[in-house]
Amino acid sequence: MFTYRFRAGLSSTDPAGILFYPELFRHAHDAYEGWMSAMGHGLDIVLAESQVLLPIVHAEADFRAPIRHGEVIAVGLAVKNVGHTSYTLAYTFRSESEDDVRARASTVHVLVDRKTGRARPLPDELRADLLARISHQDSEFPV
Amino acid sequence: MFTYRFRAGLSSTDPAGILFYPELFRHAHDAYEGWMSAMGHGLDIVLAESQVLLPIVHAEADFRAPIRHGEVIAVGLAVKNVGHTSYTLAYTFRSESEDDVRARASTVHVLVDRKTGRARPLPDELRADLLARISHQDSEFPV
Amino acid sequence: MFTYRFRAGLSSTDPAGILFYPELFRHAHDAYEGWMSAMGHGLDIVLAESQVLLPIVHAEADFRAPIRHGEVIAVGLAVKNVGHTSYTLAYTFRSESEDDVRARASTVHVLVDRKTGRARPLPDELRADLLARISHQDSEFPV
Amino acid sequence: MFTYRFRAGLSSTDPAGILFYPELFRHAHDAYEGWMSAMGHGLDIVLAESQVLLPIVHAEADFRAPIRHGEVIAVGLAVKNVGHTSYTLAYTFRSESEDDVRARASTVHVLVDRKTGRARPLPDELRADLLARISHQDSEFPV
Repeated sequence: MFTYRFRAGLSSTDPAGILFYPELFRHAHDAYEGWMSAMGHGLDIVLAESQVLLPIVHAEADFRAPIRHGEVIAVGLAVKNVGHTSYTLAYTFRSESEDDVRARASTVHVLVDRKTGRARPLPDELRADLLARISHQDSEFPV
Repeated sequence: MFTYRFRAGLSSTDPAGILFYPELFRHAHDAYEGWMSAMGHGLDIVLAESQVLLPIVHAEADFRAPIRHGEVIAVGLAVKNVGHTSYTLAYTFRSESEDDVRARASTVHVLVDRKTGRARPLPDELRADLLARISHQDSEFPV
Repeated sequence: MFTYRFRAGLSSTDPAGILFYPELFRHAHDAYEGWMSAMGHGLDIVLAESQVLLPIVHAEADFRAPIRHGEVIAVGLAVKNVGHTSYTLAYTFRSESEDDVRARASTVHVLVDRKTGRARPLPDELRADLLARISHQDSEFPV
Repeated sequence: MFTYRFRAGLSSTDPAGILFYPELFRHAHDAYEGWMSAMGHGLDIVLAESQVLLPIVHAEADFRAPIRHGEVIAVGLAVKNVGHTSYTLAYTFRSESEDDVRARASTVHVLVDRKTGRARPLPDELRADLLARISHQDSEFPV
């Protein structure tokens, strides 16, 4: 399981002193990009020059306990499902100092043709790399 | 139904030229705050001085079609459920020029005691205002 | 003078209850894009397909008084200088309810060749439109 | 000199594939908070409960070359000036792979009374820690 860390700074917290919830998704995406990069897959596939897009078509999160300003959070990332044209990732947000889960999230990614919007098969190499990392451990996660 | 508009600027879009998905939640929250304010409820309740928090405990979104850089998007907001300690809102993101739905989102809000973390009853006035605005029209929305 | 409004929501404020300062630049840019669009100039020029970039090479801001959560701020925009390859814009952030200036900002924009990085002449139409809107009124602004 | 790293992800880049400029300030602030924390100073001083604010009253940045999507950037931080009630920090943004400076920034921080808005003396310990870290090395920086 790949791990990415962030400190909940002023950039991510609100007047109540806790994480502004869209920031959870932002950090999930930064974790995802670091993980893809470590696997050897940049997101070059999504750049405007390309003929495909790799949009997220569904995202959800459950917030169990507040993430407070100044806390360091480790984001764990797991592959939950790999289809022909799509894959699902799950994220766990854990406090480093208190070692408890504060939030969970998941995202569904689909490869689509930029012009037609139709789903397209994932590249073989990406699909193989995702399948090799599939995890059933995090079984309580509701995806 | 309250409506809030935003232009998908560089601030909200990514190298593929489309909305970076966490920004959908950011705009949903700006719409929510405008709507609460128009109803006469500021979010003063969440400020750090207060003894309660009003966190979002669940958020989700479905992305149907990309929101491209420069598009003006109208965010419609509807009350889907009001409980004793919580409420659920639904958001529809519609292109103004093409009049099609690009995304939908929902959020679940719970009033909790800042110290104990336990759910607390919604203030009567807020609860009444939310109940008065409950909508069953947007029935295809999966909440 | 073009005006853009925003409410300082949770998205823009920090645990002290005031605007997180990078958000001032975000709102300045949203104002700038709205203004360019109203003038008939989209930022299509900066899209990845294009052979040019229109980067901001200098940005600065002075913060005179805090912008608090919930306040509605009007962003005024003025052209301060137009050169052969660049232009300078100035922004004034004013509280709508208290009618005082909370912050000022300025940005310097240069058109450059995407490959060589060298400055290139502004398109005639854009340059003419900017020159027609140049303002010397806001003379106390330090640009 | 304290160093903080970030990858320029979709969260920080725009349709031209380069850093959206307000994100430079966001990352500067994340670097600043990490540095303060490593020094033993949290930003607890700015939380809403406190009787003081520590606002940034001036911020500026020079962008020398684009930061492209996917690049890893190291943010160096230096103390440039320490006064009775304020201090100035300077930030250098350097590409890790190409080892060139892409941008520089500076911020001026002032301790003020939350109610009166008047400047107040910095706490002795913070002032001493800042003075101990003052740097004249980065002498080309225009502050």
